[in-house]
Amino acid sequence: MPATNVLYAQSGGVTATINATACGVIETARHARRSGRLIGDIYAARNGILGVLAEDLIDTGAESAAAIRALMHTPGGAFGSCRFDLSPLPQGSAQYQRLVEVFRAHDIGYFFYNGGNGSAETAHQIATILPRLGYPVVSIAVPKTIDNDILGSDSSPGFGSAAKFAATSLREAMADLASMAHSSTKVFVMEVMGRYTGWIAAACGLALPAGKDGPLLLLVPEIHFDRQRFLAAVRVRIAKHGWCAIAVAEGVCLSDGRRLTQAGGDGIPGHEQLGGVAPLIAAMVRNSLKVKVHWSVLDYVQRAARHLASKTDVTQAYAVGRAAVTYALQGKNNVMPVIERGSDQPYRWRIKPAALAGIMNREKRLPRGFLTDGYRLTARARAYFTPLIRGEAWPPFADGLPVHAQLKLKSVPRRLKSAFRA
Amino acid sequence: MPATNVLYAQSGGVTATINATACGVIETARHARRSGRLIGDIYAARNGILGVLAEDLIDTGAESAAAIRALMHTPGGAFGSCRFDLSPLPQGSAQYQRLVEVFRAHDIGYFFYNGGNGSAETAHQIATILPRLGYPVVSIAVPKTIDNDILGSDSSPGFGSAAKFAATSLREAMADLASMAHSSTKVFVMEVMGRYTGWIAAACGLALPAGKDGPLLLLVPEIHFDRQRFLAAVRVRIAKHGWCAIAVAEGVCLSDGRRLTQAGGDGIPGHEQLGGVAPLIAAMVRNSLKVKVHWSVLDYVQRAARHLASKTDVTQAYAVGRAAVTYALQGKNNVMPVIERGSDQPYRWRIKPAALAGIMNREKRLPRGFLTDGYRLTARARAYFTPLIRGEAWPPFADGLPVHAQLKLKSVPRRLKSAFRA
Repeated sequence: MPATNVLYAQSGGVTATINATACGVIETARHARRSGRLIGDIYAARNGILGVLAEDLIDTGAESAAAIRALMHTPGGAFGSCRFDLSPLPQGSAQYQRLVEVFRAHDIGYFFYNGGNGSAETAHQIATILPRLGYPVVSIAVPKTIDNDILGSDSSPGFGSAAKFAATSLREAMADLASMAHSSTKVFVMEVMGRYTGWIAAACGLALPAGKDGPLLLLVPEIHFDRQRFLAAVRVRIAKHGWCAIAVAEGVCLSDGRRLTQAGGDGIPGHEQLGGVAPLIAAMVRNSLKVKVHWSVLDYVQRAARHLASKTDVTQAYAVGRAAVTYALQGKNNVMPVIERGSDQPYRWRIKPAALAGIMNREKRLPRGFLTDGYRLTARARAYFTPLIRGEAWPPFADGLPVHAQLKLKSVPRRLKSAFRA
Repeated sequence: MPATNVLYAQSGGVTATINATACGVIETARHARRSGRLIGDIYAARNGILGVLAEDLIDTGAESAAAIRALMHTPGGAFGSCRFDLSPLPQGSAQYQRLVEVFRAHDIGYFFYNGGNGSAETAHQIATILPRLGYPVVSIAVPKTIDNDILGSDSSPGFGSAAKFAATSLREAMADLASMAHSSTKVFVMEVMGRYTGWIAAACGLALPAGKDGPLLLLVPEIHFDRQRFLAAVRVRIAKHGWCAIAVAEGVCLSDGRRLTQAGGDGIPGHEQLGGVAPLIAAMVRNSLKVKVHWSVLDYVQRAARHLASKTDVTQAYAVGRAAVTYALQGKNNVMPVIERGSDQPYRWRIKPAALAGIMNREKRLPRGFLTDGYRLTARARAYFTPLIRGEAWPPFADGLPVHAQLKLKSVPRRLKSAFRA
């Protein structure tokens, strides 16, 4: 008899909507169970694949329907995430043997791994290596990343909300800057995430209303940073508008491939250890143009900003979780539900399965056609981004603050005698 | 015949709700005009008192009622702000002469200056010095500052919204951190504004639900930073909870009175020019405790975050604007409408006039009884802060982004031949 239990786990940097995907997985599995299409229990691993290896499992059956529903508006990873990749064979053989032991001990028939490109490879390894060790299992990757860099998916759950928050914050900060510029601050630099890709930084271009020229520069890792050209662009905008705003991705690079933070901006050694490309850009502008500069680094705040999630994103995050379970019950394996766009306006999309082998560990970079002259958003980029940030999905508030899910996180009793050190 | 026109101006660092005060002033003045209690025009100065000196005035009569109403949900300073103080007499005599010229040329009978402690002094100077130069004028300061440091007012318009945004962002980021801590980031540092006072940093303590112990430390300028004690506190929390979050005010000081950013944290010279105490704290924790640290600097983003304004704050920001005009029409002068709290629960408040001489250029610091052991919020502080962040006041959104007021900002024709260089 095939194994019947479900195991869901979260991986990599979390997002404002990864728990909406968890909700989609759990609610769909519960529904299938009630209708007799699935007969097992629904578990989650604590802290991703590390929790699987450690046999540290959570029984989601202990959570009320209301608690699972509250995941829809709860940021972070409710079951814990991890940064850990399985080793390839043969080095990783002990890891895969351990996974077989844990899966067998808990009768896991379906594994759902909710992450980005690296996590897709983990799901692929489980789908392909465990059967060779005598334990066939359905393993499905479920997409999530604010980086929007999953190949084969038009967008990635988590991105739309991060982009909406960053673009909103920049629009608001630009209103502030415009009112201060006459006698005080003339430049504002906002750093967003994006180590290798500039999707969020580019989406910040939406802070300017469509068709409106304005003093906003977008710096992305895909386009080499040229200090002289950049400073000239800032100078021109201050002369014309009185001020200039800059959205910069953390991973912006020089032409030699070094990140600006590694190179130290103005060449001051030691600065890179403090991180933050925004203060480097700010110092460069201040020292060169002799103007007052303010800067902000959003960091976790942008990827956790569930209070301003995109409704499109929340809907899609739930949909990929639901599709993952549906695919598993249809007998699909070693795939990821991805988003396919039908049209921009009206925005049409559907979920389809993509083979993990074709998409894992690759990276979708920002198209060159998204930025004119390297600094400003094109109409094509605007048409791409706008539906992804559309719609609000306010969480409930109490006493002025958003309310998050309170889970019991009840542990599944261990069945294995041995521990495992990953 | 006394002068009849109204002049409103914005000053200092702007807030998410200063334009709600502008709306309160303009709507109340328009209403008084319609009912015959005020017969003049309603002007605004461009860029605060600098615009008055430059005779750079805006005729708000050109704005539709809908545009003025849209100020309720528009961050920044819609008419432009400035960082500029009038000089005291006798050095400033040319400035006051110029103000008389401009006021006389435009028949200004009522001056409303919307700012913090410094701006209150400007309003006081105008109320007291211009009559001595033969130009009696009603001059009223209208409170605004995210710093919450206006003496004589229970809270300051602008603060509640900044505090709500910062506490929400920290609660969300803590959910993120908790899910990453097992195998990755264990400490998150969030820097908020507060050069001399720790009101916003302390309000971040609300990120922890009432009665819940949790790994959150609050660092404020009012309590000297002790490196060893702080690092020990972080270590204890990581050991107990697996992670630790820190909210730090930009102006946190050492026992010798130097700011941490001036002292350079770990003593690395040159860092202070980049600004940011969060990266210093992050480097200190990383180097000492050997854990992965993330950090964020909110900067303008926190004080412009109108998308998450506090309803209490928006209501009070409007109310002080309305009260200022009401006071002026009642013949009051040289005062500021301030907020008096009747009770915490239910929250009761009213607006009352305070003489500018008693409050200007002073500073209300965080009471020592607001933090236990220097790091955590007391029940008394929680009772004070909670009503100030309560309630949401969502702005309208279009295509996923908040919509801001679009003003015509029509200039009033100049009547003076001379220019003036402030």
